[in-house]
Amino acid sequence: MPPPRIPALVTLMTDFGTRDGYVAEMKGVLLDRAPGVALVDITHDIPPHDVDAARLALERYWQRFPGGTVHVVVVDPGVGTARRALAVASAGRYLVGPDNGALSPALALDDATAVALLVANDASPTFHGRDVFAPAAAALATGCPLASLGEPCLDPVVVNVPEPVAGSGGRFEGEVVTVDHFGNAVTNLSAPDGDAIVEFAGHRLPLRRTYADVERGEVVALVGSSGRVEIAVREGSAAAALGIARGARVVLGR
Amino acid sequence: MPPPRIPALVTLMTDFGTRDGYVAEMKGVLLDRAPGVALVDITHDIPPHDVDAARLALERYWQRFPGGTVHVVVVDPGVGTARRALAVASAGRYLVGPDNGALSPALALDDATAVALLVANDASPTFHGRDVFAPAAAALATGCPLASLGEPCLDPVVVNVPEPVAGSGGRFEGEVVTVDHFGNAVTNLSAPDGDAIVEFAGHRLPLRRTYADVERGEVVALVGSSGRVEIAVREGSAAAALGIARGARVVLGR
Amino acid sequence: MPPPRIPALVTLMTDFGTRDGYVAEMKGVLLDRAPGVALVDITHDIPPHDVDAARLALERYWQRFPGGTVHVVVVDPGVGTARRALAVASAGRYLVGPDNGALSPALALDDATAVALLVANDASPTFHGRDVFAPAAAALATGCPLASLGEPCLDPVVVNVPEPVAGSGGRFEGEVVTVDHFGNAVTNLSAPDGDAIVEFAGHRLPLRRTYADVERGEVVALVGSSGRVEIAVREGSAAAALGIARGARVVLGR
Repeated sequence: MPPPRIPALVTLMTDFGTRDGYVAEMKGVLLDRAPGVALVDITHDIPPHDVDAARLALERYWQRFPGGTVHVVVVDPGVGTARRALAVASAGRYLVGPDNGALSPALALDDATAVALLVANDASPTFHGRDVFAPAAAALATGCPLASLGEPCLDPVVVNVPEPVAGSGGRFEGEVVTVDHFGNAVTNLSAPDGDAIVEFAGHRLPLRRTYADVERGEVVALVGSSGRVEIAVREGSAAAALGIARGARVVLGR
Repeated sequence: MPPPRIPALVTLMTDFGTRDGYVAEMKGVLLDRAPGVALVDITHDIPPHDVDAARLALERYWQRFPGGTVHVVVVDPGVGTARRALAVASAGRYLVGPDNGALSPALALDDATAVALLVANDASPTFHGRDVFAPAAAALATGCPLASLGEPCLDPVVVNVPEPVAGSGGRFEGEVVTVDHFGNAVTNLSAPDGDAIVEFAGHRLPLRRTYADVERGEVVALVGSSGRVEIAVREGSAAAALGIARGARVVLGR
Repeated sequence: MPPPRIPALVTLMTDFGTRDGYVAEMKGVLLDRAPGVALVDITHDIPPHDVDAARLALERYWQRFPGGTVHVVVVDPGVGTARRALAVASAGRYLVGPDNGALSPALALDDATAVALLVANDASPTFHGRDVFAPAAAALATGCPLASLGEPCLDPVVVNVPEPVAGSGGRFEGEVVTVDHFGNAVTNLSAPDGDAIVEFAGHRLPLRRTYADVERGEVVALVGSSGRVEIAVREGSAAAALGIARGARVVLGR
């Protein structure tokens, strides 16, 4: 692992919202323990307790940040239980968060190493973000070795995006894995080679290049910026217009 | 007071939302007048005009930040009236905001000192966040002494969380003071010594340790991360499920 | 143009929301390519595809930031089409974003210069924020000359706030151009000299100084912090109470 950047970057993703001051407490702890650290808000609007949403967002951004960045990911319905608290090193970045699968994109890499964080006796059993994860992130951001923060964890929880199923005639059966802020339905289907047809809920659409390849208000299927097939309505919401939701079946054919 | 950190930290809490550019104007003023200052967003989602919500959030975070931090708190329904504009030094931190009680957690300390800010003639009577408080924060962040910013203010508005009432048999009658982002109802009741029973709206619950001490969807009473009793629904919203709201009566007994 | 500040300031305004990780990807690209840059969130809550809202917010803040600041503005319903991608220098600041009118406040100045950004072949046709605008902002923030980023663009799209129409007797007919977070309706009418009467939808109100010049819940007309006439409800929402919306006719008379 490279040493952390000085001043280090620490990113924050939670489901806390911002209005109660919970995230603010975490930021105060970080800035107090790691003076000069640069904090980067990712989001605090993960739907409450939605570990899958955190995992899918993390997958998009964690490797875009420079080596040495510390990513804090706290969506933690199991706080205060026996679930482990993790610190992870992977692909030159660090991550901290509960052992509930949200860190899977980083844990899935071969070079990933994880430790189970020591939890102090006086940590609040309802707010490890403040009392466990922010201090661990501050420690990493100031150069503490990962191994000094806890015991090795060899079996962290890893959750993968469900794989599409290959059918006859080059067809792949997939599903919607997330619906984004715009109401676009993002699937687990990878970009095909060449032309393709996307089928879902009675629709049958050619795969297009971008939203504006159809008229305003029309449905369009395309390969989104993560390389996965998505279904959108131009300048509208596919979720609202079509009722398409997480788990909906989508088929990629010829 | 310690000198401000260089580069100084300035935190921002408002009820402005972000989409209109009001917060952006404040940030521009701060960065223009205090080059290199590190801005930290607390929240801009305080419910409009809800001074109590700002006060309760501030209570949680203001002392978590390092000495010298400048906290800007602008929830200001009285903007443009004769209400004073304050700058405060307390416990090694600075705070600026209208004199409406939001700064009470800092003003309540014995070592607190406050000044009534001079308001320039050309300050907009509808936006002191940009024209009074951001400039004052920039001044503090660049080392201007508090006393140079205005006249001493000896009677700032201080609002306290209502105290629970001690009843017979070691019972305490309290109330819900805020409902958080998760729908958890936080009371003014401090953590008891030993076991306790929490009563509200026909419910009678033992005090537990954390959310996951009950099944998903069940009601739980516990001591939250601020040391106060709260009522929650595991992975749900107590506010939505039970209709519990600010001001609801809650009793702590044995 | 002044050289960019080192470390440079880069502000971010989008309609992406934050929860999907799209903004996070942009931040990662920026921090990776422009180490040490200070990122400033403006908002990610522009209503989806609402180019006008972005333009109106930008107008408020872009010149408040110090010289050398790079403003990123990505509300981009035309992503992936032939619409140009711009980088602009104006009044000592830089701006990047699609050529759809959102950058008008900066383009309207006489000293503005614009280039059409080169778009790499491997840029996602659905996410120029990450693949075109963040790299361009990072380039500007690290000192690359504007002219090195593309070909001169002499006819960028400029959209202006509609001008009020002068009527008889010193009257001006204007309209609501935006409704803000508080439900205040901001018009295109400039502050008059001296007393004035504001008329809209059957109301006829004297122009006041600030919100608290009327009782709570009452309607008030005043000159807002951008110098334009606005209609508000004290500690309430004019939009909710009066149904006033963008485009509504408002007349300023004597």
